[in-house]
Amino acid sequence: MNRPQPVERMVEIIKKLPGVGPKMAERISYHILKMSENEVDRLINSIQKARETIKYCNICYNLSEHDPCLICADATREGDIICVVETPQDLIAVSKAKDYRGFYFVLGGALSPLDAIGPEDIRIDKLIKRLKSGSIKEVIVATDTDSKGEITAVYLAGIIKTLGIKATRLGYGLPVGGDIEYADEVTISRAIAGRTEM
Amino acid sequence: MNRPQPVERMVEIIKKLPGVGPKMAERISYHILKMSENEVDRLINSIQKARETIKYCNICYNLSEHDPCLICADATREGDIICVVETPQDLIAVSKAKDYRGFYFVLGGALSPLDAIGPEDIRIDKLIKRLKSGSIKEVIVATDTDSKGEITAVYLAGIIKTLGIKATRLGYGLPVGGDIEYADEVTISRAIAGRTEM
Repeated sequence: MNRPQPVERMVEIIKKLPGVGPKMAERISYHILKMSENEVDRLINSIQKARETIKYCNICYNLSEHDPCLICADATREGDIICVVETPQDLIAVSKAKDYRGFYFVLGGALSPLDAIGPEDIRIDKLIKRLKSGSIKEVIVATDTDSKGEITAVYLAGIIKTLGIKATRLGYGLPVGGDIEYADEVTISRAIAGRTEM
Repeated sequence: MNRPQPVERMVEIIKKLPGVGPKMAERISYHILKMSENEVDRLINSIQKARETIKYCNICYNLSEHDPCLICADATREGDIICVVETPQDLIAVSKAKDYRGFYFVLGGALSPLDAIGPEDIRIDKLIKRLKSGSIKEVIVATDTDSKGEITAVYLAGIIKTLGIKATRLGYGLPVGGDIEYADEVTISRAIAGRTEM
């Protein structure tokens, strides 16, 4: 005996969500079958509501209920500095470090030659347009520190400098609150290179 | 800056699905925001369709498009033997071992004193009713082999025997295709106790 066809279909579709394997998709599916009518409505409504109300900001491509988003509409921010991130989640993470008061730009991914993701697949053309139009003096490249993020950062730095704008990268080093014992050697090397006088 | 409220709400609801932590709920939520209209429709439709068409079989409490389910409606099966499992997923697993040709009963969980799940929270009364009504000669207790499943099995065995019916439990031992090196000691002890002559 196999799973009933409608359950099978639900499992197949849920399996495609990021980080969800076949076993987990099955668990989630049977859980959904056991949920109350109310709970299922809430789940579906939350998805529909988010899909309806959340859009891309046409300036920074952050996801927001507003266009332009609240950050881009904030006139008190420093207008000559932009922080480039890969995803809206990264933007939220950077914004939680309260020190930064400039604007943002969300690339929507990173370059990945192995996955055939090139400059035309992320918003590099839109970033160039934005850099050309404004009075931007510095771009902080805050892509991830994995190989894709690094490739993207190097690629972006080239473009940014060609436009006569200063390109910077977030500093490498030990994460605050971390145990040196567990830091990997590359991070430690970077932290030594970036050591500061006390 | 925090996540937009509708995203926050979606994350909170998705976080409650089994095995989904906060980080994963966030990843899934942003993935859903990036999905095409079509993909979102497929996801929601598969959930709604499964909810509408799948019901409990009123004989064995398996989930099925039919009531009675195809197994309970199958007159070629052996009518005097029932296999008791915790969940519909367990039923599917047992049914894939083609040797068993009897019927099933899905408890809908296991006893768990620590979680205050007692006999009235799973379908023990319905199982007793079924055992009393039929011409059942043997009940195979196929609950999980964790502590909850074991407690449930012992509890059920008592009831089954009181009704004058034979109670059996699935055999313990090494899983087929497994490496002895990675088997835990309890499983090995059980396998030694259950050794067979070659």
